[in-house]
Amino acid sequence: MEKSGFRVAVVMGSASDADALKPCFKTLEEYGIPFDVRIISAHRTPGAAFSFSSGARDAGYGVIIAAAGKAAHLAGAIAANTTLPVIGIPMKSSELDGLDALLSTVQMPSGVPVATVAINGAKNAALLAVQILAVSDGELAARLAGAKEEMRRETEAKDARAAELAGLC
Amino acid sequence: MEKSGFRVAVVMGSASDADALKPCFKTLEEYGIPFDVRIISAHRTPGAAFSFSSGARDAGYGVIIAAAGKAAHLAGAIAANTTLPVIGIPMKSSELDGLDALLSTVQMPSGVPVATVAINGAKNAALLAVQILAVSDGELAARLAGAKEEMRRETEAKDARAAELAGLC
Amino acid sequence: MEKSGFRVAVVMGSASDADALKPCFKTLEEYGIPFDVRIISAHRTPGAAFSFSSGARDAGYGVIIAAAGKAAHLAGAIAANTTLPVIGIPMKSSELDGLDALLSTVQMPSGVPVATVAINGAKNAALLAVQILAVSDGELAARLAGAKEEMRRETEAKDARAAELAGLC
Amino acid sequence: MEKSGFRVAVVMGSASDADALKPCFKTLEEYGIPFDVRIISAHRTPGAAFSFSSGARDAGYGVIIAAAGKAAHLAGAIAANTTLPVIGIPMKSSELDGLDALLSTVQMPSGVPVATVAINGAKNAALLAVQILAVSDGELAARLAGAKEEMRRETEAKDARAAELAGLC
Amino acid sequence: MEKSGFRVAVVMGSASDADALKPCFKTLEEYGIPFDVRIISAHRTPGAAFSFSSGARDAGYGVIIAAAGKAAHLAGAIAANTTLPVIGIPMKSSELDGLDALLSTVQMPSGVPVATVAINGAKNAALLAVQILAVSDGELAARLAGAKEEMRRETEAKDARAAELAGLC
Amino acid sequence: MEKSGFRVAVVMGSASDADALKPCFKTLEEYGIPFDVRIISAHRTPGAAFSFSSGARDAGYGVIIAAAGKAAHLAGAIAANTTLPVIGIPMKSSELDGLDALLSTVQMPSGVPVATVAINGAKNAALLAVQILAVSDGELAARLAGAKEEMRRETEAKDARAAELAGLC
Amino acid sequence: MEKSGFRVAVVMGSASDADALKPCFKTLEEYGIPFDVRIISAHRTPGAAFSFSSGARDAGYGVIIAAAGKAAHLAGAIAANTTLPVIGIPMKSSELDGLDALLSTVQMPSGVPVATVAINGAKNAALLAVQILAVSDGELAARLAGAKEEMRRETEAKDARAAELAGLC
Amino acid sequence: MEKSGFRVAVVMGSASDADALKPCFKTLEEYGIPFDVRIISAHRTPGAAFSFSSGARDAGYGVIIAAAGKAAHLAGAIAANTTLPVIGIPMKSSELDGLDALLSTVQMPSGVPVATVAINGAKNAALLAVQILAVSDGELAARLAGAKEEMRRETEAKDARAAELAGLC
Repeated sequence: MEKSGFRVAVVMGSASDADALKPCFKTLEEYGIPFDVRIISAHRTPGAAFSFSSGARDAGYGVIIAAAGKAAHLAGAIAANTTLPVIGIPMKSSELDGLDALLSTVQMPSGVPVATVAINGAKNAALLAVQILAVSDGELAARLAGAKEEMRRETEAKDARAAELAGLC
Repeated sequence: MEKSGFRVAVVMGSASDADALKPCFKTLEEYGIPFDVRIISAHRTPGAAFSFSSGARDAGYGVIIAAAGKAAHLAGAIAANTTLPVIGIPMKSSELDGLDALLSTVQMPSGVPVATVAINGAKNAALLAVQILAVSDGELAARLAGAKEEMRRETEAKDARAAELAGLC
Repeated sequence: MEKSGFRVAVVMGSASDADALKPCFKTLEEYGIPFDVRIISAHRTPGAAFSFSSGARDAGYGVIIAAAGKAAHLAGAIAANTTLPVIGIPMKSSELDGLDALLSTVQMPSGVPVATVAINGAKNAALLAVQILAVSDGELAARLAGAKEEMRRETEAKDARAAELAGLC
Repeated sequence: MEKSGFRVAVVMGSASDADALKPCFKTLEEYGIPFDVRIISAHRTPGAAFSFSSGARDAGYGVIIAAAGKAAHLAGAIAANTTLPVIGIPMKSSELDGLDALLSTVQMPSGVPVATVAINGAKNAALLAVQILAVSDGELAARLAGAKEEMRRETEAKDARAAELAGLC
Repeated sequence: MEKSGFRVAVVMGSASDADALKPCFKTLEEYGIPFDVRIISAHRTPGAAFSFSSGARDAGYGVIIAAAGKAAHLAGAIAANTTLPVIGIPMKSSELDGLDALLSTVQMPSGVPVATVAINGAKNAALLAVQILAVSDGELAARLAGAKEEMRRETEAKDARAAELAGLC
Repeated sequence: MEKSGFRVAVVMGSASDADALKPCFKTLEEYGIPFDVRIISAHRTPGAAFSFSSGARDAGYGVIIAAAGKAAHLAGAIAANTTLPVIGIPMKSSELDGLDALLSTVQMPSGVPVATVAINGAKNAALLAVQILAVSDGELAARLAGAKEEMRRETEAKDARAAELAGLC
Repeated sequence: MEKSGFRVAVVMGSASDADALKPCFKTLEEYGIPFDVRIISAHRTPGAAFSFSSGARDAGYGVIIAAAGKAAHLAGAIAANTTLPVIGIPMKSSELDGLDALLSTVQMPSGVPVATVAINGAKNAALLAVQILAVSDGELAARLAGAKEEMRRETEAKDARAAELAGLC
Repeated sequence: MEKSGFRVAVVMGSASDADALKPCFKTLEEYGIPFDVRIISAHRTPGAAFSFSSGARDAGYGVIIAAAGKAAHLAGAIAANTTLPVIGIPMKSSELDGLDALLSTVQMPSGVPVATVAINGAKNAALLAVQILAVSDGELAARLAGAKEEMRRETEAKDARAAELAGLC
């Protein structure tokens, strides 16, 4: 169920990030967005980072999601070579709780933005990609609105049983 | 020189943010993106925040930029009621250097993303908006690429005079 | 054993917060304060947040307790639409130890206060609500004083056995 | 124009905090809340802190506002000896931007809450005090609602001139 | 083996701190310093904090060690009422890793010092107390010097087997 | 007016710290404590740091105050070679507000304590030194008590004029 | 397989750091760099720190790696007495996630640099040492280049199986 | 006065960093180290960053110094393409005091080290470069030792006048 003509690239800095990115993959699938998964490191495969990002628009990508931890340069390194919107996911590591990755991803210098989501915010990165593709895709926008409505209903359903969920009944 | 059919909304939480947002306005103008400036507060005019964000897509907006400081809820409050991409600018205030605004803007719960840029990152917010509109607008994308090229040339020109700029000649 | 004419609303942003809020429920029960538990999200059910908070005083609530994590907007979103005192509990999450929720809750802009308690400070939120209701309720105030006295006695009793508790006897 | 029977005490840890507390005094005056200003230090006049807080309810106070910086113990020291609601204002100092005062004020142990507002949040402390007194004072509540409405109108008026305020007209 | 005429008081804010303080008790015992263990809370038993600290010098104490977590006021509350040196141990809690307790303990205002050691620095608090008592007690000073020498020898012995300890032999 | 037989050494890591240490010098003078001022750097004159600290007790010092900024090793380097109590003053620098100096000074490993005071806490360092010397010096203790009493009276006098100081009369 | 004439010294502040340093030892072995392991504490064996660092160049060392936690002075204490490059590894401890060690290691005063790597960055410390020795050792440089190439190939191989690794095939 | 056969490259991310780097240039000049100044941005001229770093060893550089602020990727981006030692200087910016640049520079992933110095540590970066070149250059090492000796003498001279410098004579 392909919705827009564009693909999304999900790039992770390390294969060990794959588990934490599952909500990202799942969400893109739910919206029928075709996507590719890449393992590219700004520091270990900088050439791949350069060639991937330089050619991303021509390769048919509409949005790039980049996930990395610690001194997380991946999203910025990709943004340096493309005019596509780049979404950065700061990954939590075992030392500074992801604060290092957050600051490394979001504090980009003037001229090269990265659209940063929360630490380990894999699902939101996917949703933001869908929102971007939906700007000019009414059907996709409608599906986002539907999901928002569904999310609302689910929370309302929990609200209706709140006392019970709180163990008070 | 209007490039895409979409307008951008730049919403600030307080009139006192206007100065720091000038690079945002200037950049949108340079790209010929039509935009509206609003002063809406998640806490002082929550009704306006609700009605603005609920109707934003129908009003012809393609992207919303929201700037707020301290416990910066504005971007999140808008994102709650629209499926448009919302770009959040955490504004620096006089107390915690904008760290509070950054965390309040970026650490959004699953389901409601905010595309966060750097503290006081006004120009990058505008560029990100243009990038989003340019996903399906080849001419706009070309202009972004041109500006990227120009930025490259400017830095290279400075590089050529680096010793001089460093006061070493 | 209803003490004041007012009810307290305990609003949580997610059903997953219910466990951490048990000391809040228990304390309100001990003081015989009637309370309702709601699951309302500033981002997932903003309409419910608006209608609940707008009508809270008329619905007979005297104080609202709001608990949320990460970019914790719930207390602020409620405070935007009511003149009732709103008590915010920043919930600890797995990333930034609750520092994000603390700053998002406490750093409110001028005009819209949130009475913030400690990270995961569920019991204190309830006590603060009782203190507020007790301002003009002498009997409730007397019960608070009694509990304070009891807390004092318990600590003093431990103090009397301190060497033993420290494993020194 | 005295609205409730209760007075508010505004206690500052140092005379040097007086300037930063002016918005607090002004707001209480606007609401016609009678208040007393005290200079009491948890560390320099602990006896005064004890006797003041122990007798505060009997002295006719309904709410206590306590402002202190650095290792800000004042609000907690007062809360230890009264069952009145205590509002803490962490004051910004020249070293750690007030983060020390914020954590010292808000992270209170179970059993002794302090209602903490933002760093230097003098006006909000006053408003919170008024909100507390207004729980059972319909007229005061109406005035708070009026001020909220006025605040809304002012922001809306600015919104109507937003383009102009942003220097875009 | 009592060395100086003075006793040391080890005051903890909660019985739950006793385990983490064991290295403190053990060290004082090793030096033959007579000590008392108290459970006194600045917030739950402020009266006890006041009477204990006011009478501490007359009671024969030479140094007071105070351990507390979160908004750790205990050491400061004691220091307010005595001219004895007060050593503060910030206790680690489950939220902010003890950073709140550290800042609450060390950032004391001018006029009322607290000698702060590391987070959970129970042994060092005891050693500092011994050092203070040893200023004018040559025999105690000699024992400290002996322990320092012993600590040196132990580390040197490990150094001699470093390759082995590192698993390299 | 020499009170105890011991001298105090005030060691600063850089001559540029001298101004911020003036309250330290002044306080020691007020108490008639003889003191020497040294400029010794753990990193620039490590030999001096070693010889000074190794011989400090024999040289007649009773307490050592060490002030340093950034990666503030001075107090710890001195504490490594003496069994005298060492008081550390973390100095504020222009980058991290003194947080680096605070952590470098206070987080000492087990076995080598440093009695840390607040960032730039020059006066409190002196007072702590006097308190340590006063443990076994009744006259000095009496003077500390007198100063505490005087501090109390001054604050009480300000309290008596609080409304006036707050600009409310 | 000895590559340069120089040895590397790996100094740890505590034997308990040995496990976390294994990647350091392993990497040095892979490059055939002869190295010695020492356990030297800036605070427990300051004399050893002094004599080791003072004689390090004459002892044939080319680079020193120093690992320590908390108020991590080891690297700085060594750098004070040698003109060899000193690489500091801030070790994570159980309290502040290694932030204290990072700031204590990296924020060195002007004149005495420490080449700081990431918290627990044992492997990178070794690699940096090899890079330093390889500046004037072409064969070693070639081996570094080979390893870089190998690292690139490994990441590229993972990239080729990225979809599979992400559980998407 | 050229000492080693190698040149040093000083790369700054922005011409605006030139002033803060003056102590770096000055120190390299004092040691007679030939150096080139470049303005290369990881984000604005990524191609230049790639080609410069890839060819740096062949171009005769022995060490690279890279200075950048905010999400400071420059040092890491260069380290990705060279086996030369790369020294990173985190530059202080107006928002987060350089903490973002420090974490972005130092928290590098395994395999790609950056030798990080203090925030704005321009002089130390130069000294570290000289130390690296001096590993196998006895004359340069001797000059470093001489400067260390001179630094010692200067501090000792100040120490001799410490009382005077402190305004106590």
